[in-house]
Amino acid sequence: MLVLGVDPGLTRCGLAVVDGAPGRAVTPLAFAVVGTPPEAPVEERLDRVASEIELWLHRHRPDAVAVERVFSQHNVRTVMGTAQASAVAILVAGRAGVAVATYTPSEVKASVTGNGRADKAEVTAMVTRLLRLDAPPRPPDAADALALGICHLWRGATTARAAATVAASAAAGAAR
Amino acid sequence: MLVLGVDPGLTRCGLAVVDGAPGRAVTPLAFAVVGTPPEAPVEERLDRVASEIELWLHRHRPDAVAVERVFSQHNVRTVMGTAQASAVAILVAGRAGVAVATYTPSEVKASVTGNGRADKAEVTAMVTRLLRLDAPPRPPDAADALALGICHLWRGATTARAAATVAASAAAGAAR
Repeated sequence: MLVLGVDPGLTRCGLAVVDGAPGRAVTPLAFAVVGTPPEAPVEERLDRVASEIELWLHRHRPDAVAVERVFSQHNVRTVMGTAQASAVAILVAGRAGVAVATYTPSEVKASVTGNGRADKAEVTAMVTRLLRLDAPPRPPDAADALALGICHLWRGATTARAAATVAASAAAGAAR
Repeated sequence: MLVLGVDPGLTRCGLAVVDGAPGRAVTPLAFAVVGTPPEAPVEERLDRVASEIELWLHRHRPDAVAVERVFSQHNVRTVMGTAQASAVAILVAGRAGVAVATYTPSEVKASVTGNGRADKAEVTAMVTRLLRLDAPPRPPDAADALALGICHLWRGATTARAAATVAASAAAGAAR
């Protein structure tokens, strides 16, 4: 299963494609950080982020896109850019017919490190280890996009399995 | 000049097309509120808002799109939906090649009523009067989209005139 992780932002948007399945090793296929200049018109910045995600969807054909869910943060200006970038990521993924999942930062941290309050260094260290990289991913912001992809591979699969169990029970109930 | 005003939101997104120019009467051509169900997946909600705006761009061919600029608000959940809806509005307008402008709520209120702290009833009353409507626009949320359109007709034109003056001065300076 291929997952495109998107750590949304207008100034820096992390993108990563990972391949894997629950209980199997995860392989990173690509990761990068796309930036747009703060002084550019917002319509150009959003178009640049959207176009880059469209390019990755076309190039890698992921089975799902995992986007960080925007959350209450201290800096309203930052959270706005994050919310706007996440919206275009979700829009273009949905329009491309790719399944979309969103995860809060603490869900991602818990999934990757076992601790929902892990700091950036812990997440980066765990991502580096899980992906068997020789050094932490560069640029550093790419680690969050990789963590989102890993989170979806593990949590998304669990959710899908739970849904399948529910469906199977319902079918068994109906057959009775 | 035709302006499409967008009062962004996922649950309720106000859309309005107004025709006018500074110093001339403003005519409303269309206004409506588009809603999406809160229980629908966010990718469907964003697609619905984006598709509706694309339809209005295609149908009315506005010269500009005026979108409310998302601002610090009390309810973080509300502000997220507003930021996401504004992002898709700005994205699809920009991609359609239509000029995009954003205005804060107080800029819109000041432009329409002369008071940046006017309440919703005052804005609605002034919009009703400026557009020579027999009754306040319905649904009520459409009034904000109409106000955004009026704001752009008046303020946008002023900005354009200021830019033209600066350009003319620069040209005169260069010619000297």
